Amino acid sequence: MRDVRIKKYLKKLDYTYAFGVFPTIELLEKRPQNVNKVLINPKINKELEIKLKDLCAKAHVKYEFSLDHILRIAPKEHTFCIGILEKYKTELEKNTNHVVLVNPSDMGNVGTIIRSMVGFETYNLALIRPAVDVYDPKVIRSSMGSFFHINFEYFDYIEHYLQKHSAQNLYPFVLNGKNQLQNITFKKPFSLIFGNEGEGLEHKVASLGESVLIKHTKNIESLNLASSVSIALFKAQSN
Amino acid sequence: MRDVRIKKYLKKLDYTYAFGVFPTIELLEKRPQNVNKVLINPKINKELEIKLKDLCAKAHVKYEFSLDHILRIAPKEHTFCIGILEKYKTELEKNTNHVVLVNPSDMGNVGTIIRSMVGFETYNLALIRPAVDVYDPKVIRSSMGSFFHINFEYFDYIEHYLQKHSAQNLYPFVLNGKNQLQNITFKKPFSLIFGNEGEGLEHKVASLGESVLIKHTKNIESLNLASSVSIALFKAQSN
Repeated sequence: MRDVRIKKYLKKLDYTYAFGVFPTIELLEKRPQNVNKVLINPKINKELEIKLKDLCAKAHVKYEFSLDHILRIAPKEHTFCIGILEKYKTELEKNTNHVVLVNPSDMGNVGTIIRSMVGFETYNLALIRPAVDVYDPKVIRSSMGSFFHINFEYFDYIEHYLQKHSAQNLYPFVLNGKNQLQNITFKKPFSLIFGNEGEGLEHKVASLGESVLIKHTKNIESLNLASSVSIALFKAQSN
Repeated sequence: MRDVRIKKYLKKLDYTYAFGVFPTIELLEKRPQNVNKVLINPKINKELEIKLKDLCAKAHVKYEFSLDHILRIAPKEHTFCIGILEKYKTELEKNTNHVVLVNPSDMGNVGTIIRSMVGFETYNLALIRPAVDVYDPKVIRSSMGSFFHINFEYFDYIEHYLQKHSAQNLYPFVLNGKNQLQNITFKKPFSLIFGNEGEGLEHKVASLGESVLIKHTKNIESLNLASSVSIALFKAQSN
């Protein structure tokens, strides 16, 4: 693998970082071919060091002890390792279940959503632009390493997504949805479609397929986006 | 009301802040008697200014235009108002549904949990120490103002909570729970009990009442805490 410059993450870079031991282990196990290098903090405990070295050997990945590099880019003082990841392209699988996020803006939410997706056997994520950069280390971190399990694909317009995946059963989640979530049996392959944190879905999207309502009291304007998606995935999986 | 010093939030202060227009409106509507003052950014738009002034008048609360103060303590440049809140004490209601968080450590999670609680008609939150400071503006902010709807109470040990609320039906959520969530009908009044983000519940708590499992794939270690609580509350409410 080429030598990359270890500097703070920027969207325009063609590599990114997995911070911490657990995400780096997930990375080495799921995407070994995309790991550029692993940086290990010399203060790591022996057991984890052995585990990491072992995984690096299996994956034919180089590692390097370097406190300097870690302190330069890690968000936390006690980051014991960093996986450097060459960005890769994935495409959504056809005829399987999808989550579609229209204009998501919060990286923590998107990471948490990916974690719930992988927990509930949904491995394909469509993102409609403008949308957060899923390669941002903040997304990878809040996904707790589950990021490496999913396929994701960006679309400039939802129409592009719909054209490419016309066999999907569409379920837009909106505050005035026609069907209450607890009464729905999702037809597979499904696409659970969610709007932006602040705005929800615009009318043309809300009117696609079978709209769904997660009923809540009027004491809140809406549920948190990651909470909504997690609830929907739980229901879809326990159908 | 007394004059308080406008400075960055500290746990030891006996007042705290609601940042932003929406949380401040919720505060003025739900806890007018506890508002010390409202700080308004001179750059606020006219409509919101009128709404805030109107609510302040109704609640007999003073307001003040002050960009300086806002810039000194607000997390974002474009914070259009801040509600200064005198901390108050609440006690949990008896014979109603509770959420019990054992040692929660992430403020964003706790705020998101409060938001889902209020969304799903559950207004009583027990926190077992050590636990985050729910008065921290980060919790209030991530609750999106729903914080002012709930009662909360801290307990040094879960035993203290159990003694005081012995009529509750206990449902500890654990990774090896006996009952899968989708098959459970919660008996009211219920207490949904959740462990820490990293550790889960220790055995003595996990063995109380009817343990519950939110089944997920082995590709994740666990769901995000706020996602788990939100899923559980949705299920409990749609029983």
